[in-house]
Amino acid sequence: MKWENFSKLESIKTLAALTPVDVKEAMAGENGAKRVAEYQVPMSNNMVYSYAAKQVDDELLAALQGLADEASLTEKYKALYNGDVINVGEQRLVLHQLCRGQLGDDVIHDGINKREFYLAQQKRAGDFAKKVHAGEIVNEAGEKFTTAVQIGIGGSDLGPRALYLALENWAKVNNTLKMEAKFISNVDPDDASAVLANIDVAKSLFIVVSKSGTTLETLTNEAFVKDALTKAGLDPSKHMLAVTSETSPLAHNPDYLDSFYMDDFIGGRFSSSSAVGGAILSLAFGPEIFERIMNGAHAEDELAKNPDIRKNPALLDALIGVYERNFLGYNTTAVLPYSQALSRFPAHLQQLDMESNGKSVNRFGEPIDYLTGPIIFGEPGTNGQHSFYQLLHQGTGIVPLQFVGYKNNQMENDVVIEGSTSQQKLCANVAAQIVAFALGKDDDNKNKYFAGSRPSSIIVADKLTPESLGALLAHFENKVMFQGFTWNINSFDQEGVQLGKLLAKRVLAKDTDGALTAYSDLLGIF
Amino acid sequence: MKWENFSKLESIKTLAALTPVDVKEAMAGENGAKRVAEYQVPMSNNMVYSYAAKQVDDELLAALQGLADEASLTEKYKALYNGDVINVGEQRLVLHQLCRGQLGDDVIHDGINKREFYLAQQKRAGDFAKKVHAGEIVNEAGEKFTTAVQIGIGGSDLGPRALYLALENWAKVNNTLKMEAKFISNVDPDDASAVLANIDVAKSLFIVVSKSGTTLETLTNEAFVKDALTKAGLDPSKHMLAVTSETSPLAHNPDYLDSFYMDDFIGGRFSSSSAVGGAILSLAFGPEIFERIMNGAHAEDELAKNPDIRKNPALLDALIGVYERNFLGYNTTAVLPYSQALSRFPAHLQQLDMESNGKSVNRFGEPIDYLTGPIIFGEPGTNGQHSFYQLLHQGTGIVPLQFVGYKNNQMENDVVIEGSTSQQKLCANVAAQIVAFALGKDDDNKNKYFAGSRPSSIIVADKLTPESLGALLAHFENKVMFQGFTWNINSFDQEGVQLGKLLAKRVLAKDTDGALTAYSDLLGIF
Repeated sequence: MKWENFSKLESIKTLAALTPVDVKEAMAGENGAKRVAEYQVPMSNNMVYSYAAKQVDDELLAALQGLADEASLTEKYKALYNGDVINVGEQRLVLHQLCRGQLGDDVIHDGINKREFYLAQQKRAGDFAKKVHAGEIVNEAGEKFTTAVQIGIGGSDLGPRALYLALENWAKVNNTLKMEAKFISNVDPDDASAVLANIDVAKSLFIVVSKSGTTLETLTNEAFVKDALTKAGLDPSKHMLAVTSETSPLAHNPDYLDSFYMDDFIGGRFSSSSAVGGAILSLAFGPEIFERIMNGAHAEDELAKNPDIRKNPALLDALIGVYERNFLGYNTTAVLPYSQALSRFPAHLQQLDMESNGKSVNRFGEPIDYLTGPIIFGEPGTNGQHSFYQLLHQGTGIVPLQFVGYKNNQMENDVVIEGSTSQQKLCANVAAQIVAFALGKDDDNKNKYFAGSRPSSIIVADKLTPESLGALLAHFENKVMFQGFTWNINSFDQEGVQLGKLLAKRVLAKDTDGALTAYSDLLGIF
Repeated sequence: MKWENFSKLESIKTLAALTPVDVKEAMAGENGAKRVAEYQVPMSNNMVYSYAAKQVDDELLAALQGLADEASLTEKYKALYNGDVINVGEQRLVLHQLCRGQLGDDVIHDGINKREFYLAQQKRAGDFAKKVHAGEIVNEAGEKFTTAVQIGIGGSDLGPRALYLALENWAKVNNTLKMEAKFISNVDPDDASAVLANIDVAKSLFIVVSKSGTTLETLTNEAFVKDALTKAGLDPSKHMLAVTSETSPLAHNPDYLDSFYMDDFIGGRFSSSSAVGGAILSLAFGPEIFERIMNGAHAEDELAKNPDIRKNPALLDALIGVYERNFLGYNTTAVLPYSQALSRFPAHLQQLDMESNGKSVNRFGEPIDYLTGPIIFGEPGTNGQHSFYQLLHQGTGIVPLQFVGYKNNQMENDVVIEGSTSQQKLCANVAAQIVAFALGKDDDNKNKYFAGSRPSSIIVADKLTPESLGALLAHFENKVMFQGFTWNINSFDQEGVQLGKLLAKRVLAKDTDGALTAYSDLLGIF
C-alpha cells in the first residue's frame, strides 16, 4: 500500500487514452433501458446507486478499477478503520465510522478501546435523553423540557441539522418526535435572538458543541444564551449540556447538567455519528432512532470494503467523480435530492466535500499539480427545476448531477390530482430530468434546443427512514474519503479555515494595518 | 444602439490585451488601504459597493467603460424601462422595475398605463391586507387570520421567501409583523403536509401564485390544501387568494376571496416587486413596509441609469463579473451575506442569475461561442467559514466572492463577550476574510500556506431594513440584466425548463420508452 500522488499513477494513462461515453448516444433508444438495468449497484437498506447516465462504459469502468487497485483505495480504507494515523497532518486516527459499528480490528488508543468509548458516550447521551423524555430530568420548576437547542457551527451544526430536518416529519407521523430541535450557529447576534424568541427558554435544553471548547462563535452564542437564561431568572447550569472532547475546557465542568464526549479522531464534518449528532438526535427522536440511523450507516460502511468497484457504490461514485474532475475538467457537482425533508442535506454535503477535498497539497504537505475537490451546491427538486436548472440544461458548461429519489413519501398524506399522486409527480419529474439532461432535444428553434449529453447519477431508496438516511450519510462520507485517497490528499484536516480566524482576532484586538484597517473602518466595527 | 454578439465587440480586444491585477500585490500594505478608499461606489440608502479586492485597476476600468459604452448598456436599460420589446424571444416588454417606480416615459400597452396598473394592484393587495389586519376580513368563524401561506414555486417562492425571512425578525422588533408567512413550493407532498401540520388552517389565508395559472406544482399544492381545508370542515373559497395574470384560469374566479394581477411583462424571478411579492409581504408586514422595500429598490434602479461605470454599482459589478467570466475563466461566484436573516437570499440569487443568464444562444436564437452566466451558490457568514471556505482558500481553483455586510444587526439584542459584541465579531470576520483571501499567508509548512490573490467585492449597508433590502434586490437584478445585455442574450426567458416538464407529463401519461421507462420503473412510479 503506497501513498502516491495521483499524477504519478500508471492507471491514469490508461484512463486518459479512453474516450468518454457520449451520454446522449449511449442513453438513446433501448440501449438506454439496457444501461439502466446494467449500470446500477445495490446499496444497503434496499437502496440502489444508478450510474447509467454517466460517461462510462465497461472499458472505462475497468480502467477505473485499475485506478482503484493501483491506489489501494479499499486497503487505505481498511487501514483507516483499523486505526492507522490517516490524518497525518494532525497525527490523528480517523474513526467516525467506528461510532456506528466495528469494521475490523479493535482500535485501542492510549489503552482505550475506542469502539467501546464511542458506544459508552452514545449510551450516556441516550440514557440522559430517556430521562428527559420520562420527566426524570426536569427544569427548575419541575416541568418537562420540550425543546433541545444545538449551539454549534460547521460540522457541529450542518450535519445534525440536516439529519434532524430529514426525519422531523417522519418522526411526527411515527409518534417519535420527543422534543423539537433548534439550532444556533452564526455569530450574528440575530441568529441566537431569533431562535430564543421562538422557544420557551424555561423548557429548553441547550447543547454546546465544540470539540476544542474554543470555537469563537459557539462560546459567544453560549454566553448569549446564558445571558438570556439569567435575565429570565433561570439557572443556566440547569439548562446547558456540553458535547466536547475530554481535554477541552467544557469537559467535566459543573456549569453543565451533563457532558458527552468525542475525541480528536472525529472530524467536525464527520461528527454526526458521534455525540455531536447523538445527543441532539436522541433528545429529539429517542436513542432508538439514532441507533437506527447508525445501523443504516454501518451497513453502507460494510459495502465500502469491497474492492470491486461495481459492487461498492461509494467507491464507484468516487471514481466516476474523479474521472469527471481530472479527465473531463468539470468543476462543480450539483446535489439534487427529490425530497423536501433533505432541504439542508446539500449544505451538509457542501461542507463535507469542499472542506475535506478543497486542498492544494498532498497528505505530506507537498504542492500538487492536479485538480482536487469540486464545488458542491444543490437544492431539493422539484424546486430547483424552476430555478437554476435552466443553466444546467442550456448553459455554456457541464455540471455533473447527483440525484436522490424516494419511491414513497414520509408523511402518510397525499392526494390524487389529474390521475396521479403528488409523490408520482415528484418521481416522474426526477425520471424526466435525468432523461432530459441525457438525451436533450433537437429543435430548429435554437432557443428551444437542448444539447443533452449532461451526465447524472441517482440514488433511489424506498423511503427516507432512519436507516436509509444513515446509509445516505455514510455513502457520501465514504465517497469523499475515497476521492481524498485517490488524490493523495488529507481529507481530514482543514488548515484553510485558520487564517481568517487569526485575522478576525487581530481586528477585534485593534491590531490592524493597511487593507485590514480600511475594511474594518468600512464596516464601522469600532 | 446595436445588439451585437459579445465576441464581435472591439472593446474586448482592448480588455484581452491588459493584464489582470494580482490582488495579493495590489492589496498589500498601505496601497491596499488606498484601494479600499478609492475603489468604492456609493449605492442608494447609504450603502456602498467596494471592489478594491477585485482584479482591476484604472486602466482595466477604463477598458470596461469602453465595453459598457460600445455595448450601449445603459441605453439598453433605458429602452427596457421605456417599454421596448426586450424579451424578444417571447415578444414581451420587461417591466419589473416599473412596479417600484417610474424611470422614464410612461409605458402604455394596449391602452393601459402599466405603472398605473401595477400601482393599482399593489394598492388592492395593500387594502386587502389592511382589512385582514383590521379584522374586517375574517374566517368563517369570524376570527382574524393569523397566517399567510404562499403556494408557488421558482420565482413565486424564492424571492418572496428570501425577502420575508430577511425582514421577519426586523418586523418583530419593530412591531410590524402582522401575520406569519409560510411557503409551500415543492410537489413533494411532504412539503405541503409539513406546513399544514404547523399552522392553524382555520386562521390561514393561502395565496396561489402562478402567472400562467398552469404550474403543475402550484395547482397540485392548491388542490392539496383545498382538500385539507375541506376535510377540516372549512370552505376553501373563504381562505384562498390568487396572484396571477388576468388571462389565466385563476383570474376573476369565484373560488378565490380576491385576486391580484401581474402580467406577461413580469418574469417569475423578477416578480418580487409585483403582486407576487406584494400580496404576501403586505399581509405579513403591512403595505407600508412593502412600499419601503420598493422605494429602496427604485433608488437603486435610478443609480443604474448612469453611464459612468464608476458611479453605477450594478453596472460595474456586472462588468467585473463579465471580466472574471470571459477573460479570467472563473466558472462560479459565491454569494456570502454576513447576516443570518439573508439565509435564503443566495438561493434567490441562484435562480435570478442562473435562470436568466444560463444560456447558449443570443437574443436572436443564434448559437454563441463564448461563456455566459456562472454558477451561483452561497450561505451566510460566519457559517460558511466553518464549511466550504476551506476550498475557497486552499482549493485548486479560484471562486470570485461577493460579500454583503451590515454595520448593525436587526434585533436590538447583543452581548459583550471578551471585549466585543457579537455584531463586532461578525464584522471583524468579514473584514478578516476579505483580507485573508486577498493577501494569503506564506508558510514553510505548505499545509498552512495560503496563496491569496482571491478576488472579492463587498456591499456594505448600515442595517438590513426594508429600504436596504430593496436596494440589494434591485442591485442584483440590474447586475444580471447588464450582464445579459453584454452577452447579447435574452435574460428574460427560460426555455431550458420546458423539456423536463414535457417528459414528466409523458411519464404520468405512461407514454414512455427506453430510458424513460427504465427510470420510471427504477423509481417505482406505477
